[in-house]
Amino acid sequence: MGKKKIGIIGATGYTGSELVRILTNHPEVEISLITSESRAGELFSDVHPFLQGIADQKLVSVDRIDEFELDLVFLALPHGISMDFVKRFKDKNFKIIDLSGDFRLSSSEVYEEWYQIDHLYPEGIKQAVFGSPELFYDDIKNARLIANPGCFPTSAILGLAPLLSAKLIETEPIIIDSKTGVTGAGIKAKTVNLYSNVNDNFKAYGLKNHRHTIEIQGISDRIAGQNTLIQFTPHLLPVDRGILTTIYARPTGETDEISLRKEYEKFYANAPFVRLRKQAPAIKDVRGTNYCDLFVTYDARTNMVIVISVIDNLIKGAAGQAVQNMNIMFGLDETSGLNLIPLNP
Amino acid sequence: MGKKKIGIIGATGYTGSELVRILTNHPEVEISLITSESRAGELFSDVHPFLQGIADQKLVSVDRIDEFELDLVFLALPHGISMDFVKRFKDKNFKIIDLSGDFRLSSSEVYEEWYQIDHLYPEGIKQAVFGSPELFYDDIKNARLIANPGCFPTSAILGLAPLLSAKLIETEPIIIDSKTGVTGAGIKAKTVNLYSNVNDNFKAYGLKNHRHTIEIQGISDRIAGQNTLIQFTPHLLPVDRGILTTIYARPTGETDEISLRKEYEKFYANAPFVRLRKQAPAIKDVRGTNYCDLFVTYDARTNMVIVISVIDNLIKGAAGQAVQNMNIMFGLDETSGLNLIPLNP
Amino acid sequence: MGKKKIGIIGATGYTGSELVRILTNHPEVEISLITSESRAGELFSDVHPFLQGIADQKLVSVDRIDEFELDLVFLALPHGISMDFVKRFKDKNFKIIDLSGDFRLSSSEVYEEWYQIDHLYPEGIKQAVFGSPELFYDDIKNARLIANPGCFPTSAILGLAPLLSAKLIETEPIIIDSKTGVTGAGIKAKTVNLYSNVNDNFKAYGLKNHRHTIEIQGISDRIAGQNTLIQFTPHLLPVDRGILTTIYARPTGETDEISLRKEYEKFYANAPFVRLRKQAPAIKDVRGTNYCDLFVTYDARTNMVIVISVIDNLIKGAAGQAVQNMNIMFGLDETSGLNLIPLNP
Amino acid sequence: MGKKKIGIIGATGYTGSELVRILTNHPEVEISLITSESRAGELFSDVHPFLQGIADQKLVSVDRIDEFELDLVFLALPHGISMDFVKRFKDKNFKIIDLSGDFRLSSSEVYEEWYQIDHLYPEGIKQAVFGSPELFYDDIKNARLIANPGCFPTSAILGLAPLLSAKLIETEPIIIDSKTGVTGAGIKAKTVNLYSNVNDNFKAYGLKNHRHTIEIQGISDRIAGQNTLIQFTPHLLPVDRGILTTIYARPTGETDEISLRKEYEKFYANAPFVRLRKQAPAIKDVRGTNYCDLFVTYDARTNMVIVISVIDNLIKGAAGQAVQNMNIMFGLDETSGLNLIPLNP
Repeated sequence: MGKKKIGIIGATGYTGSELVRILTNHPEVEISLITSESRAGELFSDVHPFLQGIADQKLVSVDRIDEFELDLVFLALPHGISMDFVKRFKDKNFKIIDLSGDFRLSSSEVYEEWYQIDHLYPEGIKQAVFGSPELFYDDIKNARLIANPGCFPTSAILGLAPLLSAKLIETEPIIIDSKTGVTGAGIKAKTVNLYSNVNDNFKAYGLKNHRHTIEIQGISDRIAGQNTLIQFTPHLLPVDRGILTTIYARPTGETDEISLRKEYEKFYANAPFVRLRKQAPAIKDVRGTNYCDLFVTYDARTNMVIVISVIDNLIKGAAGQAVQNMNIMFGLDETSGLNLIPLNP
Repeated sequence: MGKKKIGIIGATGYTGSELVRILTNHPEVEISLITSESRAGELFSDVHPFLQGIADQKLVSVDRIDEFELDLVFLALPHGISMDFVKRFKDKNFKIIDLSGDFRLSSSEVYEEWYQIDHLYPEGIKQAVFGSPELFYDDIKNARLIANPGCFPTSAILGLAPLLSAKLIETEPIIIDSKTGVTGAGIKAKTVNLYSNVNDNFKAYGLKNHRHTIEIQGISDRIAGQNTLIQFTPHLLPVDRGILTTIYARPTGETDEISLRKEYEKFYANAPFVRLRKQAPAIKDVRGTNYCDLFVTYDARTNMVIVISVIDNLIKGAAGQAVQNMNIMFGLDETSGLNLIPLNP
Repeated sequence: MGKKKIGIIGATGYTGSELVRILTNHPEVEISLITSESRAGELFSDVHPFLQGIADQKLVSVDRIDEFELDLVFLALPHGISMDFVKRFKDKNFKIIDLSGDFRLSSSEVYEEWYQIDHLYPEGIKQAVFGSPELFYDDIKNARLIANPGCFPTSAILGLAPLLSAKLIETEPIIIDSKTGVTGAGIKAKTVNLYSNVNDNFKAYGLKNHRHTIEIQGISDRIAGQNTLIQFTPHLLPVDRGILTTIYARPTGETDEISLRKEYEKFYANAPFVRLRKQAPAIKDVRGTNYCDLFVTYDARTNMVIVISVIDNLIKGAAGQAVQNMNIMFGLDETSGLNLIPLNP
Repeated sequence: MGKKKIGIIGATGYTGSELVRILTNHPEVEISLITSESRAGELFSDVHPFLQGIADQKLVSVDRIDEFELDLVFLALPHGISMDFVKRFKDKNFKIIDLSGDFRLSSSEVYEEWYQIDHLYPEGIKQAVFGSPELFYDDIKNARLIANPGCFPTSAILGLAPLLSAKLIETEPIIIDSKTGVTGAGIKAKTVNLYSNVNDNFKAYGLKNHRHTIEIQGISDRIAGQNTLIQFTPHLLPVDRGILTTIYARPTGETDEISLRKEYEKFYANAPFVRLRKQAPAIKDVRGTNYCDLFVTYDARTNMVIVISVIDNLIKGAAGQAVQNMNIMFGLDETSGLNLIPLNP
């Protein structure tokens, strides 16, 4: 059996370049197609010169997709654009992993409220499986369309899931204070990611209404089997990659650190990319990898549970988790092509 | 009337160099003495070469302090050492501003529990005034010994005070998630402030037991007139200077953003260094200055109050606030010598 | 005699905000006018929120300039635009300091060759005085139009001048390897100053044809009284501010370190902003100030002279040097308003 | 035939952790032994927590080395210490790759002059092969002891070799202006690599007498077949990894850019890790990889050749080049285990 044939729709962003970086060394797939409308005809390494000699594929327009036999397509596109392509590809034979936010929420109504644009393909929301392998492995295995989780939701949900699943914490509200690297804002030059606005600086943004709030809350509801209320505040770190999320919640009953840790060990016993840490982890501990490092503790003085969660937003928070989903969909080893080791320092 | 004569005890740290930086341009004081035991005989600018031509005073041993007529002495020393000097200076004619943590807590018992060392001068704790000018202006005016507030407590307490004072929030617990620049860890080379451990990195530390927890809680108790329970988590930012504190609390009754803002405007009507902002501030907005920028908001969806507070940890969080206290003790304009403008970018 | 009245043309860039930062605390001038076409009607602190409460002047269109009585105008505009305003203001009563590159070169022909645009006001080139106070103090005193030096040229020329003036080095070629902070590229978001393209990165740019090459060479020719040939290579540092320039040249005769240092001391005996250092300086040693720190040495093994020069590109390389020129033009103390102390760390 | 068995002497530094990072995914070798005297008994991942679950080998004292059958040993030790072990291992059956500077120079006399310590094993200098695969492939193949090149020399020599080999440049002097990341200073906390001394900062160091000067000059002499005189100035960048070297030299005769590029293409036709670039490369283009990216140009105006060279100092400048040498010594494909892709951003 030959290698699986992969298409990547959207080449110019970080998600695209990370997918190529990971898939280039993947032993069981090959990249057959990379599309770009703005840079068609150029090489992928013209767009990302650090990949010269590594990824010199010619970019083509998505209009030529039928010339390629594809087993699976990654959509590395902005939200709002992505749903249009999912709709357009609805009768194709390939599987789809959408890295945008277009199919992650519970309904088109919720989407329209938080994204403030119309949803073009509500049918897709019903079909899509939320691609969090640690939570929905079996659904992913049989899915045709994956809504790959957002970066903040990945860090928050993996930190919360054992607590919610075992009903160990009160759920209204849960405080989620997240700090992200700049690549979360994308590759386009904007005031927000101008070097001198970020360097030696730090700020909160998107207070009260960041779109990932509802994504976290929606999945938390499902895991908990009850309503949750998520207070989510993102902050912008002067680093390229990485998210650290600090979670605060009230325990529902008596608890202590040891029993909490056991709960996490049990919950993630079969999760190759979750590392339970004995100390609070740092974002560089997972840089360049698909790991989510977790630390849970309990403060008896205040009766609060605190969880620290770190990921690389471009990998476990985007391209790496997408490849993990692909592996599961193809029946491959979940870790295939993802034996990445942290670049530290 | 001539200029006031100032002594600085401890020259090698950041607190010392910041005091000199600020006092050098202060129109109403002069630095008569800078002490150092390890570098006595050298120039201040030998220790801090960027001050060549600006602060070339010769360093002398503290043993020679009686040779100088001093109006006020700043102690720029580590905790544990500082209390020894306060004791030693107890019968001197000069006023004292102690920048360490030795006299900030409510009793020697509390100190010994959180600092894990014996307190050598409990009498000093009783005499000391907590040097937060926005809260205790009148006490500062008449004080002989000031316990200059810690950096995290300054950012947290200024953010909380209007809420606590007007009993607008529930006080058990209050979530205080702080992020600080590296200079908070001091000037000595350690693993924690090694460049490659900090750069492009981010982590939490001191969970549950950081000493500033009890300092914040002690002052919060006083302002609120009731018990508070502070959940304080510091994190280490890859920046030199600056603290951003994000505060989460439940309102005690009905509230909204406009009324909260009015409360802050009223509370800080006479505070020249508190700036109320219309947007969430960034740490570079106050870099190099004595400002504390505050932003308060209310999330109706979750029924939570959120406050963002930023300061320069070395200035409003240390040397600048100390000079502000000095101005008040001398009956000078509170802002004298402190008309610093943010260095941004 | 009242304070001098100042206008600043162009408010949105770093040069504008630095001028305001410096002039706000200047004891002998006042800012009467700040213009902006794109933001007219807003406050200066709306454009630069860190200046809230410090610089809340209302921005007006330059078309209203005649409503103001002005003693001097700073042009904080891009090259190509600036010359148009110099021409337009040619019969006004106020003096002009132009911070762009439009009037720094020896002729409109040279300008057009290196800037690749037509020069609209060649007459201005003849009138303009190159605003390097350490070299042309007397000319500046009597000038009506100052061409404020470029940032790289300032660092290079101050490093070279004593050598060229005393004919101590061979002049064809002189190697000038410069490294600059990102603010040199301006405040507009571009790919080149996108955070993730700069952070943890470093690169050369503008090899062989950077415009500052000819500015350095033109002034070097004048100081040396003979032809020079400048090999200039700028590099982009992951820092906000600062230029470090490393200069390599062959001595014309026998030399040694001591005699070279004496030459520098003599040359800069009356220069309050040049600090001769005993060790190689770092850019943070001058951050936020108008200093140029210099270090000169001689390598007997290779028979080469090496000079290290550091400045803050936004201050001594732009706004600070402009204010220094203004002081000289007004007959004030050269250092008035410029007693800035390095922000370090 | 089984996997080759590898020992790593010295576990606590960056060189040790990088070797482990690379060798863990190498298909044809296995790590049999990692030694540490200070941390014996602990796990490798206790020393480097980011490798938890990836490299959990127990550290043992080097005294137990005879318990292990080893094919090759890497010495990841400081200079001065390393030569002692080479001497101690002189009759062992395993090959040795020494990553220190102890065996890179032409004689013990030269070593003692530049390193200012006695050489304990001059015999080793005679046996050692300088491990630059692009230059000495055949010697490496048959070597028992490799002196792995220094980081600066790797970047400089790869940039210069085609010019020197074809006698295209004058050799007295050659200007080599290098800029390095902080990891070059090692993992121990020192004033020089304290975060706040490096961040937002930049400086030159080691002017005229850095030890890599003579290493570069010694190899340059060999390649050129004549005396060279190297003017080498290192500078410290606020980045973790990466070296960019800018080289200036006079051509010996007429030249132009096209013919220079052809010379480089010919010289590196069989070098899998040298990438010739059409634009000046940036250090992040090679971060995390064994690549050396080169750009050569000619300035007709000044008659100078300019070369830009970038490497990751910890990989091509240390551990990666060491593994490349190991591959050659074992007769493996030179690139085995080294298919690393740049982490960018």
